[in-house]
Amino acid sequence: MLRQGIGDDAAVIRPRGAVELWVVTTDLLLEGIDFRRSWTRPEQLGHRALAVNLSDIAAMGARPRFYTVALGLPRDCRRGWIDRFYQGMTALGRRHRAHLVGGDLSASQHGIHVSVTVLGESLARNVVLRSGGRAGDLLYVTGTLGKSAAGLELLERGRRRVSPPARAAIAAHLWPEPRCDAGLWLTRRGVARAMIDLSDGLSMDLPRLARASGTGAEVAADRLPVFAASGRWGADPLRLALDGGDDYELLVAVRSRDAARLEAEYPTSLPPLTRIGRLTAQAGVRIARGRGGGPSPLPPRGHDHFRGGV
Amino acid sequence: MLRQGIGDDAAVIRPRGAVELWVVTTDLLLEGIDFRRSWTRPEQLGHRALAVNLSDIAAMGARPRFYTVALGLPRDCRRGWIDRFYQGMTALGRRHRAHLVGGDLSASQHGIHVSVTVLGESLARNVVLRSGGRAGDLLYVTGTLGKSAAGLELLERGRRRVSPPARAAIAAHLWPEPRCDAGLWLTRRGVARAMIDLSDGLSMDLPRLARASGTGAEVAADRLPVFAASGRWGADPLRLALDGGDDYELLVAVRSRDAARLEAEYPTSLPPLTRIGRLTAQAGVRIARGRGGGPSPLPPRGHDHFRGGV
Repeated sequence: MLRQGIGDDAAVIRPRGAVELWVVTTDLLLEGIDFRRSWTRPEQLGHRALAVNLSDIAAMGARPRFYTVALGLPRDCRRGWIDRFYQGMTALGRRHRAHLVGGDLSASQHGIHVSVTVLGESLARNVVLRSGGRAGDLLYVTGTLGKSAAGLELLERGRRRVSPPARAAIAAHLWPEPRCDAGLWLTRRGVARAMIDLSDGLSMDLPRLARASGTGAEVAADRLPVFAASGRWGADPLRLALDGGDDYELLVAVRSRDAARLEAEYPTSLPPLTRIGRLTAQAGVRIARGRGGGPSPLPPRGHDHFRGGV
Repeated sequence: MLRQGIGDDAAVIRPRGAVELWVVTTDLLLEGIDFRRSWTRPEQLGHRALAVNLSDIAAMGARPRFYTVALGLPRDCRRGWIDRFYQGMTALGRRHRAHLVGGDLSASQHGIHVSVTVLGESLARNVVLRSGGRAGDLLYVTGTLGKSAAGLELLERGRRRVSPPARAAIAAHLWPEPRCDAGLWLTRRGVARAMIDLSDGLSMDLPRLARASGTGAEVAADRLPVFAASGRWGADPLRLALDGGDDYELLVAVRSRDAARLEAEYPTSLPPLTRIGRLTAQAGVRIARGRGGGPSPLPPRGHDHFRGGV
């Protein structure tokens, strides 16, 4: 009944007699590591804690259904704080038709801890694993890469009243939008062979998909949907697109023969889909920087949750 | 598909097409609140974090199946610590045939946080809620009450090399044993009308069952299976049985006409079952102390996870 354990975006379970598979995922957010209270409102934290888990469900091509929350709170967090936290969380849950079904609340001596577990349900018996890719598959990403990291840099510098693109970057960091609809569309159409969500940056998450699929990968720098506006305030859009975490976009591997159909049929109502490279028979992940010369290895410099910190 | 949300030991879900119901529960343990690192070995913490969740599954009359773990660790916890933590957890999981299916590991700036979510499966469509009791039902508990709290008091006083009963009390605190087998037996035989696990002490958890069932309750002090040995080191066994947390025994309401059959058939291989009182039409929870005079109100002085601390 256990179809896929640790090592994908979510575990896969088959309840006896059920047609659909169930997927389950859990993520932890800790104050000082994943967020700072000084620039995160309770609603945003509630939203974000659920969003990062919904993103894992999206990357399995599954529908979120139920979630539980374990919340450790310092004694200075009052009733109003908790109410606002749950408002942010349940508002996002409602939009994705996911129901809060349980939780645990505990006093904490140091900082806020939020751990969320989401249960999702597959379309029929169809889930998309990281391991389904094959050499020659084309790689696509949803949305824009490096926007959330650009927002985080601004928050860390304490810059709040800033230009519209800066505000958009900050919003991308504080209100990440899980790509559930895109994940379901790609799965329902049968074009997603392998999928992962970009939580730790492309340079960390692409090697995970490639290794699981038994392939290497190559991406083209000039094809990446970078957040160019961050260059205006001195950031490096390409570096943020490669190494910035918290984008929660989907990276998907598609058979090359499905690419034309995908590009023709992908709905404009979903976040834009950009072809960025391909899976290769040669192991390792490389990037073509378009400066002449061949592609060079892409060092994994993204966010590592155990080493990293805000 | 959601049968029971927040407010019972676990939420109840019915996957489309499945015969069995699924139950899901989550619990958080925080350093300094739920345990101290100075007297908790990593194996014990791993065991305990899973045990408290298995206990919730037991109280639903369900079988544990899968679990996920979110672990926040200070940087001074090394690989060896993590390995030992998982050894303690998976050893308990194996005994109850529950599989670890996913997790998240994060650095923590302050203290250890462990949040576990367990998925369980019902026997057929049969789960036992807190709310199924009726006035006149008899109340039973498994095991001994106040033993874990007696052990905690010894740990807090720094007493380690102590008498056999003191060592038993400390073991009860550090290695709580979820009553999954008893919960399943009581459910399979159809005698459990309402059930709850005693995590916060009888004086906190009995009112929860009674309120959910729309009844009051009365217990007899001289019937409680107290841990009498704690009197030897100056503790009050009755107070610990009423107000001590972390026993993880089951409290179950049984139709009075089922009592004789239950007492005749309950297997000696399971932890002992003791009749301690009954549910009453009169609201509120009372205790008969056997000093003459009628029963008096039982004040809820057990552990409240949001106010409390180790």
